Amino acid sequence: MYSFKNDYSEGAHPAILEALMRTNLEQEEGYGEDRYSLEAADLIRQRIARPDAAVHFLTGGTQVNMTAISSFLRPHEAAIAAKTGHINVHETGAIEATGHKVVVADSDGDGKLTPESIQQVLDAHPDEHMVKPKLVYISDTTEVGAIYTKSELERLKTFCDAHQLYLYLDGARLGSALTAEGNDLVLSDLPKLTDAFYIGGTKNGALIGEALVIVRDSLKEDFRYLIKQRGAMLAKGRVTGIQFLELLKGNLYFDLASHANRMADKLREGLTAQGFRFLTHSPSNQIFPVLPNALIDALLHQYAFLTWSKVDAQHTSVRLVTSWATREAAVDGFLVDVAENLKSSVR
Amino acid sequence: MYSFKNDYSEGAHPAILEALMRTNLEQEEGYGEDRYSLEAADLIRQRIARPDAAVHFLTGGTQVNMTAISSFLRPHEAAIAAKTGHINVHETGAIEATGHKVVVADSDGDGKLTPESIQQVLDAHPDEHMVKPKLVYISDTTEVGAIYTKSELERLKTFCDAHQLYLYLDGARLGSALTAEGNDLVLSDLPKLTDAFYIGGTKNGALIGEALVIVRDSLKEDFRYLIKQRGAMLAKGRVTGIQFLELLKGNLYFDLASHANRMADKLREGLTAQGFRFLTHSPSNQIFPVLPNALIDALLHQYAFLTWSKVDAQHTSVRLVTSWATREAAVDGFLVDVAENLKSSVR
Amino acid sequence: MYSFKNDYSEGAHPAILEALMRTNLEQEEGYGEDRYSLEAADLIRQRIARPDAAVHFLTGGTQVNMTAISSFLRPHEAAIAAKTGHINVHETGAIEATGHKVVVADSDGDGKLTPESIQQVLDAHPDEHMVKPKLVYISDTTEVGAIYTKSELERLKTFCDAHQLYLYLDGARLGSALTAEGNDLVLSDLPKLTDAFYIGGTKNGALIGEALVIVRDSLKEDFRYLIKQRGAMLAKGRVTGIQFLELLKGNLYFDLASHANRMADKLREGLTAQGFRFLTHSPSNQIFPVLPNALIDALLHQYAFLTWSKVDAQHTSVRLVTSWATREAAVDGFLVDVAENLKSSVR
Amino acid sequence: MYSFKNDYSEGAHPAILEALMRTNLEQEEGYGEDRYSLEAADLIRQRIARPDAAVHFLTGGTQVNMTAISSFLRPHEAAIAAKTGHINVHETGAIEATGHKVVVADSDGDGKLTPESIQQVLDAHPDEHMVKPKLVYISDTTEVGAIYTKSELERLKTFCDAHQLYLYLDGARLGSALTAEGNDLVLSDLPKLTDAFYIGGTKNGALIGEALVIVRDSLKEDFRYLIKQRGAMLAKGRVTGIQFLELLKGNLYFDLASHANRMADKLREGLTAQGFRFLTHSPSNQIFPVLPNALIDALLHQYAFLTWSKVDAQHTSVRLVTSWATREAAVDGFLVDVAENLKSSVR
Repeated sequence: MYSFKNDYSEGAHPAILEALMRTNLEQEEGYGEDRYSLEAADLIRQRIARPDAAVHFLTGGTQVNMTAISSFLRPHEAAIAAKTGHINVHETGAIEATGHKVVVADSDGDGKLTPESIQQVLDAHPDEHMVKPKLVYISDTTEVGAIYTKSELERLKTFCDAHQLYLYLDGARLGSALTAEGNDLVLSDLPKLTDAFYIGGTKNGALIGEALVIVRDSLKEDFRYLIKQRGAMLAKGRVTGIQFLELLKGNLYFDLASHANRMADKLREGLTAQGFRFLTHSPSNQIFPVLPNALIDALLHQYAFLTWSKVDAQHTSVRLVTSWATREAAVDGFLVDVAENLKSSVR
Repeated sequence: MYSFKNDYSEGAHPAILEALMRTNLEQEEGYGEDRYSLEAADLIRQRIARPDAAVHFLTGGTQVNMTAISSFLRPHEAAIAAKTGHINVHETGAIEATGHKVVVADSDGDGKLTPESIQQVLDAHPDEHMVKPKLVYISDTTEVGAIYTKSELERLKTFCDAHQLYLYLDGARLGSALTAEGNDLVLSDLPKLTDAFYIGGTKNGALIGEALVIVRDSLKEDFRYLIKQRGAMLAKGRVTGIQFLELLKGNLYFDLASHANRMADKLREGLTAQGFRFLTHSPSNQIFPVLPNALIDALLHQYAFLTWSKVDAQHTSVRLVTSWATREAAVDGFLVDVAENLKSSVR
Repeated sequence: MYSFKNDYSEGAHPAILEALMRTNLEQEEGYGEDRYSLEAADLIRQRIARPDAAVHFLTGGTQVNMTAISSFLRPHEAAIAAKTGHINVHETGAIEATGHKVVVADSDGDGKLTPESIQQVLDAHPDEHMVKPKLVYISDTTEVGAIYTKSELERLKTFCDAHQLYLYLDGARLGSALTAEGNDLVLSDLPKLTDAFYIGGTKNGALIGEALVIVRDSLKEDFRYLIKQRGAMLAKGRVTGIQFLELLKGNLYFDLASHANRMADKLREGLTAQGFRFLTHSPSNQIFPVLPNALIDALLHQYAFLTWSKVDAQHTSVRLVTSWATREAAVDGFLVDVAENLKSSVR
Repeated sequence: MYSFKNDYSEGAHPAILEALMRTNLEQEEGYGEDRYSLEAADLIRQRIARPDAAVHFLTGGTQVNMTAISSFLRPHEAAIAAKTGHINVHETGAIEATGHKVVVADSDGDGKLTPESIQQVLDAHPDEHMVKPKLVYISDTTEVGAIYTKSELERLKTFCDAHQLYLYLDGARLGSALTAEGNDLVLSDLPKLTDAFYIGGTKNGALIGEALVIVRDSLKEDFRYLIKQRGAMLAKGRVTGIQFLELLKGNLYFDLASHANRMADKLREGLTAQGFRFLTHSPSNQIFPVLPNALIDALLHQYAFLTWSKVDAQHTSVRLVTSWATREAAVDGFLVDVAENLKSSVR
């Protein structure tokens, strides 16, 4: 049984565990003030060429989103997200639990927002009887694997600046986005094109950990209070600092993401070659092929993956996710098994 | 420079890192439904002889406290804590941020609550113009290192039951408490004597992780929703499951705590022998000697530790914390350095 | 300039002001424990034939909704509402500010929910990664003036009971609903068909005040604590008690609503006779005629009302609201003015 | 049975009810944008000589406090209050329900804060592991009837400014404070000496209503959103506007308070003359005489008032409250009854 269920089925990249081992008995400051966390933050500031950026390490995506958004907004201010946005659906109301409404903006099937969709939200919220939309939440890749181009992000940032909106980018799968076919963004573009964003570790080789980068000055103040208040400050902050240092001191972070994408590419191409189509175009590490139900049933005996949505009476889309740890042999085997299942079903 | 600043200066016990290594590339379910977390939860149920207990793994103490307390209470209900209680002082208002007041009950210098002190709180909250105290928060060890005896805990539980109060025990340093001189509690007493408690990992050899045990049936429902909503559900839940399995499958958890206590005992005895007194009696891994200011200044060149409170013009209490990782040579060295500093200051 | 903008443009029905005058210098208990509030609560229990119901008086609709919903739900539980539902749009995120997500269910243009639309919401929220929908919020009349029939409400209640959902009815305009053409509900049906509901005073002749009726036992406990905590407990609770006593001791409440409906009927019939159509069918005190833009511009010089939505390049729907205080002469005048404007625009 | 239990036992001053009557059928804008509310806000700005102040009308004290404080503070910021402060004790955790801790500062028996007591709080909150105290909550009169002198308030404001703290004054009984013996403050001092304050209506002749005045620019933004979100925006905002206009267009507000104070003076002097002492010195409309228990029991057959605190085995302090509506004959009668009860008990 091999799993294409998600990109967090395995532990951490071995280099990370080795770094944890190597530094294990050193005594360090607690609560993120250890030298590794400080170094990792510096390294991120260097890589994005923004010595003024605030960098904080937290443990998971929902935690970063709720801590950041509740820190950035006043009580009556709301976040705008795509209907499929992680904060809107898959965080058990974490944002609302901190007091803020998530307002849905229209998006195409790819889960991306546009100035036009945000403008519609603004038009529908003219006065104090409604919440005040103040922060635009996007993710790259989106929940369905799409990526933003540089010009798309530039249009969004220009729009947000013109309307006093913060632009916040959830980078749970930022590695995959920045190494995907068709991407023209680099990490150092993000501080120019967002007010805050995070670099996802958990889904790209870390055990735990996400690096939040706050660019806009007015959003930086007292952020460590918020981390502590939301239960997000690790006594052993070194655990996240060491991991990000390992991921970002060389090219490991992007190498891991490239591997994941390459595995997804192979799956995509293999399935396309066998005549299958896809629910949406995804150039990243999540793909959504539309498969015959009988094939899905057969495959689920050998592979773990999610069924996504019913397409018609005979077909369903499924989600296949690859990661830094996906074995190429498993990908090859999967494509062979698809082919064989199809053949046998013909007989 | 050796640190007695806290019990989370080092990483994890090596056996834990080895377990993480060993299992690293196995594919597991996400979000705490991996087999290690399930096994670790079973193991805890066995060790406390309560097959019905709900067991959840979270990452840190503040996070457990805020998630549990906000799950257990209705909006108008409050937690009762000692003035020094961690939730009252050192969690940046995390409980209040979920909407609940922390009401302070009197306690002696040892940070322990009694039925009498809780009764006073109840008397002061007679009706709907005040919050309704509903949960009693205690910690073992307390913030100043004291421990509860079995009979003290029995009195508290009897009182709480009689007054429809939940009794919740913060076990951030439960290992140290249960292995301290004078302790007569065992782990399996806790489900009888509390409604919920947690077994602290971070301060006793784990990288991250606390195991929350919910005993009272009415408090168990839907708890995983709360974990997710508070940002406390790790995608790679295995990280905490594997650690608790390692700590609790044999006696490692208690061995580590015993070591920490033994190191503290040695410090206490050595300082007592040199004529120093202590701010409070603490039989656990935190001690609070009262030292001359000049001695403190001198020691701070060689050791890291916290100054705690001014005692008089010439004396201050300090906090020395030992852990599973404290080296005995460092303890010996500290005592020698104290003695030498005293001698030299006489000259 | 006459206003059809809303049903709260005037003060209170004179009988109410007289009752406030008459009782003004009597000394009464504070915080809703005065004899008038107690009497009014008893009276409501009698009129709905439910001696066990809990009755509380609050000041406005948003306040009732947020106090009730935040009392009824645990932190991870959500309210289901129509897209147009007042709690979803027009309460500045008051529900979210208490920590709860409002999940939108599909509804037709009339703003009514059905078991089918709620089932879709339940299907989309299968586990702890999403909020748990727990309370169904409906209003009678709806935001666009539609009313529920008895059988529609019965189907909803049966569905909610079968799915452990609370059914909560916002009765800001309950008077208009229960006296509208086509209505087959009576006040005493509501405790059978909902778990809680409120009888709106502000929009039906009171100065301020809404009467919340809680029927389900498990939702009653400690509700006064919540009223106080949400800032909704008036020191001079008599102000709302006296008003509801006046409204409900005879038939005043329904007489006032009938007048409002009759005025709306007259407007509807007059406009229909002049050939206009309506955005939705509304038998209650809010109607939504579709008018030529030029006519709207002309009318706005003499009348105050809201434009509602663009229909096509030449037409817009407007909202006309009548109330207990609407003067029949103003209605007649409005219809005449419409006719004259049309004629003059032909010339 | 005559009540000295509180200052909200009666309805409104007759002039207020007459104003409500007189304006009753005029059509006005909703939600506080009626001409009376606008005029009343202007009038307040004139009386305090601050054309730039923001003025908002809400219904009750707890509501104003929770709306203002939750608007002014970021999530990790806390309010400082005296132990007896209304927000600390008597608001059912309303402030905490919006997410903010109330930190207690020492105060003498009079419930007043000083720079010294606030400095102690600041010293105890040095970093991000604790909440950040940011707003100082005081009330004039205090919960036990004391008043602030101008120089005391000046010291507080200077201290707050120096420490980036907001100074917020709860004026539920501001009328009584500003007309009390020993007071040297006038209404127009308050904008210089606080960042925000409210002028209490409910306890000084209004049916409902408090006027919040925000002086500091940075605290004004979007406040109407907060009013709506907290359920504090009345559809018929005219109800509070008309009342404040009536109270403040002449000297009614202060005349009513003076009457209340004069009645309290008479009680104080009469009881002093009969040899009784008082728990605290209160020059305002609440006094706290220490009476023999037997006398209290006897008086409670004829009068309603609160017993306050046990003084010794034979004595208890009680709270007597006077108001704009207190009849002088009742005061005289009370003093006579005290005297007679004493005499009869001697016999």
